[in-house]
Amino acid sequence: MNVGFVGIGAMGEPMARCVKRAGYTVTACAHRNRAPLERLMVDGVDAVADPAAVAAVSDVVITCVPDAPQVEEAIFGGRGLLAGARPQTTFIDMSTISPVATRSIAERLSAAGHEFLDAPVSGGPARAAGGSLTIMAGAEPDAFERTRPILASMGTPYHVGTVGMGETVKLVNQLLIASIMIANAEALTFAKKAGADVEVVRKVIATATGANYLLENWLPKTWLAGTFEGGFALDLLRKDLNAALEAARAMKLAMPASALAYQLYTAQSAEGDGARDYTAVARFYERIAGE
Amino acid sequence: MNVGFVGIGAMGEPMARCVKRAGYTVTACAHRNRAPLERLMVDGVDAVADPAAVAAVSDVVITCVPDAPQVEEAIFGGRGLLAGARPQTTFIDMSTISPVATRSIAERLSAAGHEFLDAPVSGGPARAAGGSLTIMAGAEPDAFERTRPILASMGTPYHVGTVGMGETVKLVNQLLIASIMIANAEALTFAKKAGADVEVVRKVIATATGANYLLENWLPKTWLAGTFEGGFALDLLRKDLNAALEAARAMKLAMPASALAYQLYTAQSAEGDGARDYTAVARFYERIAGE
Repeated sequence: MNVGFVGIGAMGEPMARCVKRAGYTVTACAHRNRAPLERLMVDGVDAVADPAAVAAVSDVVITCVPDAPQVEEAIFGGRGLLAGARPQTTFIDMSTISPVATRSIAERLSAAGHEFLDAPVSGGPARAAGGSLTIMAGAEPDAFERTRPILASMGTPYHVGTVGMGETVKLVNQLLIASIMIANAEALTFAKKAGADVEVVRKVIATATGANYLLENWLPKTWLAGTFEGGFALDLLRKDLNAALEAARAMKLAMPASALAYQLYTAQSAEGDGARDYTAVARFYERIAGE
Repeated sequence: MNVGFVGIGAMGEPMARCVKRAGYTVTACAHRNRAPLERLMVDGVDAVADPAAVAAVSDVVITCVPDAPQVEEAIFGGRGLLAGARPQTTFIDMSTISPVATRSIAERLSAAGHEFLDAPVSGGPARAAGGSLTIMAGAEPDAFERTRPILASMGTPYHVGTVGMGETVKLVNQLLIASIMIANAEALTFAKKAGADVEVVRKVIATATGANYLLENWLPKTWLAGTFEGGFALDLLRKDLNAALEAARAMKLAMPASALAYQLYTAQSAEGDGARDYTAVARFYERIAGE
């Protein structure tokens, strides 16, 4: 089975590499920066000019781009995937976008005789490189079963419902990380200001009821290591939070904690940290703590 | 070594039982309700009339009560521990109270020739019963080493700093659980309202970056099991949050997420859920979601 990849950025590049390593023929194209494509070519990925050319040689095409407009462009744009797709191509969108946009894309592809799955991921670049992402797939059962081996080369796929539900569950995860990261930043700033040893606190909390993945696995590589490079861009989290808040608005559901989180990340983005890891929200706390 | 216990409620009762099982002579007294004392007597705990009588036969006395005024009463009250204490008694307060109150108590006991440790715990009644609490001790190193075997009968003791630092680290944990529980309630309400299967969401998130102890271990026994009985009382969390917010005020540190959390728990307490497990904040979300 031939797999095409459009979107080989911080996540897509290591994900495409995992699919190639699993033995599939993988074809990709560059967007602006050619460096990721050249690195993938070293690993045996075939390079072509544009998404239409990717689709022309692929049974399954994967998109992994920042947001819905980029998914639209990759699929429906002038030299987009649809322009080159063979009959009955399977489209898998692994981007994190609004479930509303996802369902709209799925309908249009279905009308054109193609199949669609949404399969956003969680875990960040390190787990993408190791092929150990969490993958939340929204799909018809048979489409999920047929594509499962490809997804499994990138991590652990979970079938969470019909089309759009993968994105919904991913947004649930993003709501959680947005608020939990702020809880960590706020509580650790309190701890530091009160004179506690943050490493001792982290070790103890890991065994207590406040234990959480980000405190154990994410903060030691970012804020607590004194760096905010790599990881997951703060502005991408703002984009996800905005998608969740929009979905909530449509459902008439108040989300006070997530709305506050959005404001705090936005305050830090305004300080110039939008492209840095979202842990940079800790710098907001350092500033208000006068540290 | 003889150990005395004052405060044998939802946490203190199973903790006293663990100390007794570890082979210590344990003496306790009842407060209002005699039932916990009678259950402990079946397990070999000696019963006496009041805290002064507890101290009269103990080398180490442990307090485990709701808040600072109750610790003050248990130690300094008319028939309090101090009234009956032998010379050089070791006082261990395992309540969760303000570090400021803790240091004041420690100073007064020190002036009376006694030693003091603060050793609040995390884990709830189930882990208290199993002797697997997380214990955060603020103490002089030698006091910690001498009392470590007693603490170890109730869980895993960590020496986190000098007197008062146990409470500080405990408040850090409480700040985390307050905000993380709200993050869980808000995100799962979003998930339900969007038509997701909450059990599937929980299983997937457990492997993703939003993973947290409360979602994995606490919610399945409370909200998701349709009960808010037992656990950790919402009003006790409000008390802890208030202590942390007061400490933050003294340090001139803004804690926007924790301040919001306090308001949401207070809204639910006003609905009559103050004595129920703090997961009852999920009912606030059910209400605003119209579910």
